[in-house]
Amino acid sequence: MIVVQKYGGSSVADTDRIKRVAQRVAAARRGGHDVVVVVSAMGKTTDSLLRQASEISVIPPGRELDMLLTAGERISMALLAMAMHELGYTARSLTGSQAGIITDAVHGKARIIDVTPGRIRQGLDEGHVVIVAGFQGVSRDSKDVTTLGRGGSDTTAVALAAALDAGVCEIYTDVDGVYTADPRIVPGARKLARVSHEEMLELAAGGAKVLQVRSVEYARNHGVAVHVRSSFSYSEGTWVDNGDDMEQAMISGVAHDTGEGKLVIRGVPDKPGVAARVFTDLARANVNIDMIVQNVSSDGTTDISFTLPLADGPRAQLLLEALLPEIGAEEITFDTDVAKVSLIGAGMKTHPGVAATMFAALSDAGVNIEMISTSTIRISVVIRADAVAPAVQAVHDAFGLAEPDVAGVGGRVSGASGRGRRVTEAQA
Amino acid sequence: MIVVQKYGGSSVADTDRIKRVAQRVAAARRGGHDVVVVVSAMGKTTDSLLRQASEISVIPPGRELDMLLTAGERISMALLAMAMHELGYTARSLTGSQAGIITDAVHGKARIIDVTPGRIRQGLDEGHVVIVAGFQGVSRDSKDVTTLGRGGSDTTAVALAAALDAGVCEIYTDVDGVYTADPRIVPGARKLARVSHEEMLELAAGGAKVLQVRSVEYARNHGVAVHVRSSFSYSEGTWVDNGDDMEQAMISGVAHDTGEGKLVIRGVPDKPGVAARVFTDLARANVNIDMIVQNVSSDGTTDISFTLPLADGPRAQLLLEALLPEIGAEEITFDTDVAKVSLIGAGMKTHPGVAATMFAALSDAGVNIEMISTSTIRISVVIRADAVAPAVQAVHDAFGLAEPDVAGVGGRVSGASGRGRRVTEAQA
Repeated sequence: MIVVQKYGGSSVADTDRIKRVAQRVAAARRGGHDVVVVVSAMGKTTDSLLRQASEISVIPPGRELDMLLTAGERISMALLAMAMHELGYTARSLTGSQAGIITDAVHGKARIIDVTPGRIRQGLDEGHVVIVAGFQGVSRDSKDVTTLGRGGSDTTAVALAAALDAGVCEIYTDVDGVYTADPRIVPGARKLARVSHEEMLELAAGGAKVLQVRSVEYARNHGVAVHVRSSFSYSEGTWVDNGDDMEQAMISGVAHDTGEGKLVIRGVPDKPGVAARVFTDLARANVNIDMIVQNVSSDGTTDISFTLPLADGPRAQLLLEALLPEIGAEEITFDTDVAKVSLIGAGMKTHPGVAATMFAALSDAGVNIEMISTSTIRISVVIRADAVAPAVQAVHDAFGLAEPDVAGVGGRVSGASGRGRRVTEAQA
Repeated sequence: MIVVQKYGGSSVADTDRIKRVAQRVAAARRGGHDVVVVVSAMGKTTDSLLRQASEISVIPPGRELDMLLTAGERISMALLAMAMHELGYTARSLTGSQAGIITDAVHGKARIIDVTPGRIRQGLDEGHVVIVAGFQGVSRDSKDVTTLGRGGSDTTAVALAAALDAGVCEIYTDVDGVYTADPRIVPGARKLARVSHEEMLELAAGGAKVLQVRSVEYARNHGVAVHVRSSFSYSEGTWVDNGDDMEQAMISGVAHDTGEGKLVIRGVPDKPGVAARVFTDLARANVNIDMIVQNVSSDGTTDISFTLPLADGPRAQLLLEALLPEIGAEEITFDTDVAKVSLIGAGMKTHPGVAATMFAALSDAGVNIEMISTSTIRISVVIRADAVAPAVQAVHDAFGLAEPDVAGVGGRVSGASGRGRRVTEAQA
């Protein structure tokens, strides 16, 4: 069986940790498996390279920034290969390009369009551990080095697992699985044994940092079973798979995200084409929009509100202010002091009253709701940032998520959150 | 005209220096030239990567060490490309592989066997400054990343200049040219305006660190004109070319090298095959031999002495001690306290008495000669390490090298020396 293992930056932060990763890879090899290892850059390497780039250029050309950043995984994968040799295993490190990760040419956030793992298969056939640089690929047409965006190593691992028809894709991280809520906020949060791709997608989009959204999408589209587990212990983590044979728990968990801001365009004339114009321009500027809410008012104007990553806020604001006269709106406000709390559960679509229960719990906790957005398996609300802890705790309690699966109201969801960049595309 | 410029590690040691290099490249571009820039890794990057490797493995596998080290130029070339963009010039950075530097598969000291600069030409045709990672290539058969050995960026630059039929290959360094002797030892040393490939080869082999021996060999074999100059000034440096139209100065300069040790095998039975056996074994162990001296004695035994890089000494000693019983020799000694002083000049082959003058000068200065080795355009002696300064000064004075070209006894030679690794193959 082929096993794909992915180790993130904190797992390979220094040479001692790299040696520990080598021990773990060796254990899988001794277990009789063919092992493909995907590694990120060591610890803060990427940040350090970005700092150097910023000393030279405010907006460095994407092609060259990708060339620069890909030095990071090159270092970690070569060192891991050396550590494997020290343990008596032969290993071959491969760049994204050598491993056959073919992408489009969008530097900085390239998408994988093909995987041609000939050299990986050859390495496995020759008995080597194959170590692949995560996060990077090569563009099909220009043959330039590309990167998949931050956290792209998860996607590399899932894509290789799919292309190699691997038995499992293990994502090693610094938490031991996916939780019903962030344990730092909800002490009673429970680790989930399994969660479906769909739910994991909503959890990741809702702010759970344990897996990158695109990697979950890729896993869902290609039916890849992902095992999220800790690189510091050998205990089972959380399985993310297609969920066919799972009892559908009504609710899997509560995710939250404080990495977004809320932008409001006030006094927009209620006529066709305005929203289209606004969001087309934002998309062209590569601003990632999350929740969008619009209510038509009685006086013929309306407010359009949406959430977006904090980092994209100033850019979006500038762009829209230039657009104000043309669309005839009154003003733009950007509120950075918000948080999003999401309740996720594949079972909620067949259970009425879930939204009502959630809103009542928030109300009882004194939390004011500013925006609401729903999908078939998710309810998200935007609230004040300082209310996030009581809100998550209240919702977690209301659905009894701390209890092991009881009467169809089982527990599920997500791990670490906090201020940070999200990678979700628009989902409103 | 195509100009190839090479900048070493000290020229790109930090982002400020990279910006200064960009200014200089821009000046060449404004001069109407197509510019190909070859860069080394920033300052101490290579040493830092080697240190990390040593934390993991005593003898890391060559393939992986090359993968690791090539991260260094990747960083410097991408940053330089960004700096060019900041100045309003478009630039494309290319790895050794992308630039078409095809090598054999000897990791750590690969030799260039072909150059296929299609992507460089394309980049130039599109109006870009093309920036190439020095020191690295890709093996023809296995398509693995290789390195050319320390200082290999000089060779990359010369090889590209040859393949592109460039007008000049400019090697930028921290000294402003090639001197008649190391100016730190001989205050009156004179910068040479021109020196022939042959003389430069002997100077480099004799310890002048300003150019790597292999790059000079490559330049000689392919007729590439090299301009060695300072990255900190715009003044002319030293031209290294085929020397056809030069007046042949009798002596071009004095080089010295304190980076070697002397190994003596005493009491070797004087019978056929012993030397062959010794040097075959040393070659297999990748020990670089420099001067070899053997005198047959009257009692049927002989001493074999040779010099070699200090770093290779312990390995050679171990290897030869194991061989002692078989070859019937008495003992091995390794003397690290020696220096080599070489007098180089294309004109000396037609002038008798040069050796006599040199030996007399050393004798007058109280310097004892331990070994002598000569070629048609070079005389080298091995002396005590602490005698190197008076020895170089005495020889420099004896041939009047401080005076600008007088009566056929013109001046020429070499720059920086000091303890360090040499790359010469056996030349005895």
